[in-house]
Amino acid sequence: MIAAYQASSQARVNAALDTLFSAPSPELARLYEAMRYSVMNGGKRVRPLLAYAACEALGGEARQANGAACAVELIHAYSLVHDDLPAMDDDDLRRGQPTTHKQFDEACAILAGDGLQSLAFSALLDPALSDCPAQIRLDMVSALALAAGPAGMVGGQAIDLGSVGLKLDQDALEYMHRHKTGALIEASVKLGALASGRATPEQLHALQAYARAIGLAFQVQDDILDVESDTQTLGKRQGADIARDKPTYPALLGLDAAKAYALELRDQALAALRPFDAAAEPLRELARYIVERRS
Amino acid sequence: MIAAYQASSQARVNAALDTLFSAPSPELARLYEAMRYSVMNGGKRVRPLLAYAACEALGGEARQANGAACAVELIHAYSLVHDDLPAMDDDDLRRGQPTTHKQFDEACAILAGDGLQSLAFSALLDPALSDCPAQIRLDMVSALALAAGPAGMVGGQAIDLGSVGLKLDQDALEYMHRHKTGALIEASVKLGALASGRATPEQLHALQAYARAIGLAFQVQDDILDVESDTQTLGKRQGADIARDKPTYPALLGLDAAKAYALELRDQALAALRPFDAAAEPLRELARYIVERRS
Repeated sequence: MIAAYQASSQARVNAALDTLFSAPSPELARLYEAMRYSVMNGGKRVRPLLAYAACEALGGEARQANGAACAVELIHAYSLVHDDLPAMDDDDLRRGQPTTHKQFDEACAILAGDGLQSLAFSALLDPALSDCPAQIRLDMVSALALAAGPAGMVGGQAIDLGSVGLKLDQDALEYMHRHKTGALIEASVKLGALASGRATPEQLHALQAYARAIGLAFQVQDDILDVESDTQTLGKRQGADIARDKPTYPALLGLDAAKAYALELRDQALAALRPFDAAAEPLRELARYIVERRS
Repeated sequence: MIAAYQASSQARVNAALDTLFSAPSPELARLYEAMRYSVMNGGKRVRPLLAYAACEALGGEARQANGAACAVELIHAYSLVHDDLPAMDDDDLRRGQPTTHKQFDEACAILAGDGLQSLAFSALLDPALSDCPAQIRLDMVSALALAAGPAGMVGGQAIDLGSVGLKLDQDALEYMHRHKTGALIEASVKLGALASGRATPEQLHALQAYARAIGLAFQVQDDILDVESDTQTLGKRQGADIARDKPTYPALLGLDAAKAYALELRDQALAALRPFDAAAEPLRELARYIVERRS
């Protein structure tokens, strides 16, 4: 079932995203092409799926979360473009394709990333994508800025870069992931929930607990896949994190304990959804999928 | 008079900016330090001044524009950090100090810039800085995202990088500047005007004409100073743009014609302010200052 939901989410967000990259003039064609290349690359669209599923879990319609879905994916895409730069992770491949600075050039990749971040805020407020009351949209902007910023995702990147070669304990590793990937995953769920126009504080609280658990589960499973999967399935070099001497859950806990931890986090996520009815089924399915996926 | 207004604007925005760089944890200390370093560097704060002056021109109080002033300065600061990177302009000095990637490192500078962009949106909506009705704040977010993004400032950077070594005509040069510096200057005026809570569409239109003229005047004068001023006064290498074979107004028009053009733009700016009363005097003074400044 999650495969069908994922396919429809992908189609939905890709159609919305596709409207955002028309260059307003020939002078800007290359920049817009680089942004499009960085986004329209067959990504899994996990964050948009979360936004749509959270919106529907509260009785909203998926289309109400189009702006939120685009916004979180654009932030995610920009972070990958900058993360791949030579001064950062120096990656040549992303999803099996040349990274943006390889396909274009480094300056263009820096600017494409910068532009995608601005575009995320524009998309969130784009009336052609979705609409809701002003105060809710403001809450969405604030949540996105916080999640993307130095106290969120960018902070996590900085902690990650500062951790290479260090022996992190589990608390420190989780602190890093809660920022680097967790903050935007939480924001994806929160923005989707807000977009429904019906979220109560209690529901937002429960969904935050769900998002925290799956965010961490996603990362634990990524680390496991980095050990177990091959380069072709993964679309990036297998063992890349270990080769870089980055701290990982298998390295810290051992592979079996890491797998057990991923399942425990899945169960925490499902427990957080207990107050919700059948409309939350895609969120439940996703929690299961995250720890079962092979790429 | 403008010197006093500039000093009070600087003090006001610096006090507001200073509240934004407290690291939430020791792990994030270096990133926040790099952001603070990139912002609290004795900048002229022209964009905040514009936001305050536009707010006051419409009868608002300067403090109402604190969020807007911080936001535009944070966007400006992030653009300088990224612009100075080795893959971009590769500058070692900024306002007489080592650029962020020289003082920290390249990865840290990329992330500090990214974080400053997010922080701009957070600051714009920070109730501790300023407040106004929800719909106005949304208009401010949209205007900022558009001005900062690929159809604005980032687009201008991309056009600029693509223009090195090219023979641009005056239209093409203006198209570049209207994006690279003009968009954020227009946004500074617009956000300040919106922050007053009293802006009519006619007033916004007149202020936009003002901002377009001074934005271009600012750039023309920058080009003139790049030819005439010495490195110490300028805080960056004199002749840097010419050495890089970047298109400039003096190179295109000749130095005297460039100076005449700057004065003509000043007069256009003053004409746009004719409907405004004495409260717009700081905006008028600024138009005069821009073409008279020596650094």
